[in-house]
Amino acid sequence: MARVGDEVSNKQVIFRDYVAGFPKESDMYLTTATIKLKVPQGSKAVLVKNVYLSCDPLMQFFMRDVEGPDGYNYYTPGSPIFGYGVGKVLDSGHPEFKAGDLVWGMTGWEEYSLITKTEGLIKIKHTDDVPLSYYTGILGMAGMTAYAGFYEVAAPKKGEYVFISAASGAVGQLIGQFAKLTGCYVVGSAGSKEKVDLLKNKLGFDEAFNYKEEHDLNAALKRCFPHGIDVYFEHVGGKLLDAVLLNMRHYGRIAVCGMISQYNLHEPEGIKNLMEIGFKWIRMQGYTHRNYYHLYPKFLDLVLPYIRQKKIVYVEDIAQGLESGPAALVGLFTGRNFGKQLVAVAPE
Amino acid sequence: MARVGDEVSNKQVIFRDYVAGFPKESDMYLTTATIKLKVPQGSKAVLVKNVYLSCDPLMQFFMRDVEGPDGYNYYTPGSPIFGYGVGKVLDSGHPEFKAGDLVWGMTGWEEYSLITKTEGLIKIKHTDDVPLSYYTGILGMAGMTAYAGFYEVAAPKKGEYVFISAASGAVGQLIGQFAKLTGCYVVGSAGSKEKVDLLKNKLGFDEAFNYKEEHDLNAALKRCFPHGIDVYFEHVGGKLLDAVLLNMRHYGRIAVCGMISQYNLHEPEGIKNLMEIGFKWIRMQGYTHRNYYHLYPKFLDLVLPYIRQKKIVYVEDIAQGLESGPAALVGLFTGRNFGKQLVAVAPE
Repeated sequence: MARVGDEVSNKQVIFRDYVAGFPKESDMYLTTATIKLKVPQGSKAVLVKNVYLSCDPLMQFFMRDVEGPDGYNYYTPGSPIFGYGVGKVLDSGHPEFKAGDLVWGMTGWEEYSLITKTEGLIKIKHTDDVPLSYYTGILGMAGMTAYAGFYEVAAPKKGEYVFISAASGAVGQLIGQFAKLTGCYVVGSAGSKEKVDLLKNKLGFDEAFNYKEEHDLNAALKRCFPHGIDVYFEHVGGKLLDAVLLNMRHYGRIAVCGMISQYNLHEPEGIKNLMEIGFKWIRMQGYTHRNYYHLYPKFLDLVLPYIRQKKIVYVEDIAQGLESGPAALVGLFTGRNFGKQLVAVAPE
Repeated sequence: MARVGDEVSNKQVIFRDYVAGFPKESDMYLTTATIKLKVPQGSKAVLVKNVYLSCDPLMQFFMRDVEGPDGYNYYTPGSPIFGYGVGKVLDSGHPEFKAGDLVWGMTGWEEYSLITKTEGLIKIKHTDDVPLSYYTGILGMAGMTAYAGFYEVAAPKKGEYVFISAASGAVGQLIGQFAKLTGCYVVGSAGSKEKVDLLKNKLGFDEAFNYKEEHDLNAALKRCFPHGIDVYFEHVGGKLLDAVLLNMRHYGRIAVCGMISQYNLHEPEGIKNLMEIGFKWIRMQGYTHRNYYHLYPKFLDLVLPYIRQKKIVYVEDIAQGLESGPAALVGLFTGRNFGKQLVAVAPE
């Protein structure tokens, strides 16, 4: 076993070059570098052994050399890609972290990472009754996104009609369960029969449909929401958003987390029904988990008991080994993942 | 002079039949009916002599037999059209109104109206230093729209970058002056050189442009807003909205009052840049003046002193006589009006 101070081999997923449309597996390649398992003297960095890596839609923006979401670092050709992940601290120059700690935050797609930007790194109070991998998803960025979107941005009330697109995804599945626990009527859309079954039979959604099998999305929504939609959690954009707008109720809220169907189009689809925002006094609001981390302890207090009591379940799609990482990441954009997609890099 | 109890002739603007696209003058016609100047016994109605009638974009929706904004009554073919207006009470069965009162609210396009729906009727405390016609605009529905949009929905702060479309219109000109009084940087768009001059030279806007002369709206906005837009007051929709989205700053707000460029299209233009809402955490919010009338006294306390001190000016385009009403109303949809469009029906 590798020890602090050893120089060891370090398998890495390297970013080849900037990407224009959909990322492909070939935009990344595997290599093996070496790394000294020691934080440089005087540095406040943290050296981690990566255990789980999260695949997130926003990572595609880091692959571009054009403007995308702000405030993130973009990938550098020839360097490892990075994203959210869970790791074990091997060595630390930072007073808040010590060897043996489990942490989650931004890390590299490699076996070992020297994390110099430690601001977003969060120590995990791990207990065996909650899977450690959850800190890439329900207890990590996706969970905070769901929490912020549900409780802070859209705030559905008991009895309201809630629609969630990409509902079996990392964020959607948690929002749906928050909505059911709040007493809402909840419908989700997803891209396969298996996902629709998951929503209805395992995640407790009242109704669900496969958007790929609906010729008329407006009719599908009218069927599921005869009284209209109060709150829409937007992860998809495009034609589905246009149909949702037609079915919104007065004072409806649309929490915009993402519009994954549009990111890789040469030109985004035009949304024609925005007039509904004026007609029905709808609030459409973009948000980011990053503004809500002061609520992370409150979030854990809410969600950890639900997980332990099995009142909230979470479906993960775990790819094994760094080698399978690029395919897992690219699969997000065609909906190949079944639940939260992550990569297991090393045993816990 | 007509007295209470007299039966008199009553010139009216009659709605011919439902309209599909743009309303035309020929969708209305003039006729002369008779009316008894007396509220029926036992009724709580109010009988008014109309003085000023307001031309408002939303009136086009009342001409359709398809769904538009909710909560309004639509026009009936063969009956007079109606809208906001200022009148003098001749007779009243309602305890809150008496003969001689000046009122504003929903009234008919005719010389005399028997108003049975008195819920929205507001008594005017008229003073000679404020034009009575203002109660069709700056002190009426348009004013409340501007006030709600500015102070309650978007709430621009000192130093923020504010853009207003249809900026010389009934609502836009007041929002721009609120923004200047708040210490914002304010730019407006309008559809003629004269309107642009008005914005810059009379209404105190920092910058203004004629959207009809800009081949590239994105470039026009970049020129006026090198640092981007914090708050956009949306009255237009379509291509201008798409360009605005590209120029919004993080945490930007878009207050959606209307999208007049889109109402009469066979199919609305598609908006392609909605992803910016997710990228920049923008709040886009529809609203209606109707939810804010509890603030009307507060609004008057704010705006009447400004009017009296000439810190706020208001540009009106007054058509003379009921006969000129249909052309004035229809002119809104091609931007023929210069400032707030209204119709003077009778001397004060």
